Amino acid sequence: MVDEFNLIKTYFEPLSTGLADDELGIGDDGAVINTPENHQLVVVMDTLVSGVHFLEQTAPCDIAWKALAVNLSDLAAMGAKPVFFTLGLTLPESDDDWLKSFSSGLAEIANSYNIALVGGDTTKGPLAVTVTAHGWVKSGEAVLRSGARIGDVICVTNSIGSGALGLKLLQGSFTEAFKGEFTVQEKNQLMQALNRPEPQVLVGHLLHQYATSAIDISDGLVADLTHIVDSSNQRFGEISAQVKAEIYLERVPVLSSVKRYLEQTGDWSAVLAGGDDYQLCFTMNKAEFDLIRSNTLRFGVEITEIGRIVERDPSQGLFNKVSLTLNGKPYALNAQGYSHF
Amino acid sequence: MVDEFNLIKTYFEPLSTGLADDELGIGDDGAVINTPENHQLVVVMDTLVSGVHFLEQTAPCDIAWKALAVNLSDLAAMGAKPVFFTLGLTLPESDDDWLKSFSSGLAEIANSYNIALVGGDTTKGPLAVTVTAHGWVKSGEAVLRSGARIGDVICVTNSIGSGALGLKLLQGSFTEAFKGEFTVQEKNQLMQALNRPEPQVLVGHLLHQYATSAIDISDGLVADLTHIVDSSNQRFGEISAQVKAEIYLERVPVLSSVKRYLEQTGDWSAVLAGGDDYQLCFTMNKAEFDLIRSNTLRFGVEITEIGRIVERDPSQGLFNKVSLTLNGKPYALNAQGYSHF
Repeated sequence: MVDEFNLIKTYFEPLSTGLADDELGIGDDGAVINTPENHQLVVVMDTLVSGVHFLEQTAPCDIAWKALAVNLSDLAAMGAKPVFFTLGLTLPESDDDWLKSFSSGLAEIANSYNIALVGGDTTKGPLAVTVTAHGWVKSGEAVLRSGARIGDVICVTNSIGSGALGLKLLQGSFTEAFKGEFTVQEKNQLMQALNRPEPQVLVGHLLHQYATSAIDISDGLVADLTHIVDSSNQRFGEISAQVKAEIYLERVPVLSSVKRYLEQTGDWSAVLAGGDDYQLCFTMNKAEFDLIRSNTLRFGVEITEIGRIVERDPSQGLFNKVSLTLNGKPYALNAQGYSHF
Repeated sequence: MVDEFNLIKTYFEPLSTGLADDELGIGDDGAVINTPENHQLVVVMDTLVSGVHFLEQTAPCDIAWKALAVNLSDLAAMGAKPVFFTLGLTLPESDDDWLKSFSSGLAEIANSYNIALVGGDTTKGPLAVTVTAHGWVKSGEAVLRSGARIGDVICVTNSIGSGALGLKLLQGSFTEAFKGEFTVQEKNQLMQALNRPEPQVLVGHLLHQYATSAIDISDGLVADLTHIVDSSNQRFGEISAQVKAEIYLERVPVLSSVKRYLEQTGDWSAVLAGGDDYQLCFTMNKAEFDLIRSNTLRFGVEITEIGRIVERDPSQGLFNKVSLTLNGKPYALNAQGYSHF
């Protein structure tokens, strides 16, 4: 087995780049990082466990990509600019081919989003990857879950449900009802969404100027919107009006392959509760929608208005947080999908 | 199974304390933390895996204590003041008794060292705990491994080898040569050292004024001193004199129980290569030793001079980095002990 020090030197030190002369990356007991004036630090942490968050046969380069991507997605949802991260890698055995692939995937996404690896820990054990990622926001400008206001529009980036359908494709878990086959290109798109989600860092950077609240869609659109509703109601307290989210399903953006699946099966669970989207869901003033949309389109990201934040009728009970309609008719989501814990 | 949100709310949100009004702990996509002027951020990360870094029967409260302690020890070695941490907890199943014990141990050490839990991730999988801990140092004052100079004394805090002997005791892995038994009090001391190491945060805070280099002893005294030697030689480059460390074994501070073990077995491997000490090893100018010792004694920490940084004779080969003598005679360490990877 390669010892820990050589392993880090060979595979991970090359990712410790872009630091200032008076900063310190890998190679001491800790990293030392400069802090810009008038900024706050945003810290996020996510763990991916083999067999839980990715299938055992997943390519190491894809595991690495996703492990950092899901964290960059959280930073994006806070409106933070990614700066540096640490990596906790637990491996059953030190395998050079595996490490070569893993570190190449990690380098690819780290370079794409200009984030430096500054430290971490490699340990022996069942395969799992923990990343702690750090970014900066201007002081007081982090976008929280708690700011949704009555009248705000609810938006999402790009399309939803692709990753969850990619997982179904990989697991071959389609029901009889789905007769249509995917083209090779469609399959590739779905697998790309599952294995190499693109964190919405650029949109995140715009959000602090426009969004009243934001979250990244990791647990599923409905579950994550529920967090926005809960946080916003908690913030405004019992005195002011309580909010809920209304979603118009026919507006939810999906790939054409996912649309075909929805038409043939009527099964919205992958789209609404599948999770693994790593798109942003955010609320904002309707008046600013066209402006922000023209901004995001410049770097190739479509944003879509899928619903509204409205006043909640307390007589409809505690669970009335996200209501769904499909072409004007109420739609009830089956308790399907999965949760990370 | 308790869902992730309730689990975090019940067991971990109470540890998210001491933040300013404009900071944010647990409950959003990320934590938001203020940064003090003229300071640098120090970031450390360590993972403990069940069956590798702790035995399966270890009490959850002790696992939690140690998971944070080993990170605080790294911060101490950098001379940083601990401020906040994130927790990645992977659990086979959500067990209330386990979580109650774990979170109580975590609260105990977090409160002792005044560090706030600000976020993290709970996932399902084989038991492992990753902590990323953060601290502040005054800009330019982090203590690195790379500053050891010829003539410096080498010091350690408290005593060495207790944790490694605690592990031997737990595993019943003593050789025939060791006939002496430990008293109940001695056993408790060794188990305490193994399960509840006290990170040397206060000494760490003093170090930036005195130490030329520092490391925390986690891999074993000889391996960790080798890191200091390597880093210091790398820093000074090929032109200046290369350094090595000389250790006088009879000066290495050990508990009386460990001393008896050494006398009866002659086996120094637990003390020199056992690791799991979480004491600090540092180098400094001899002239300042008495001053810093009187300072550390005020808060009950003994520091001991155990050797010197001397000029290395290149003719003695590449591996001549740490030389050991016992009562004036050269001592060779068997390749025993263990490494974390």
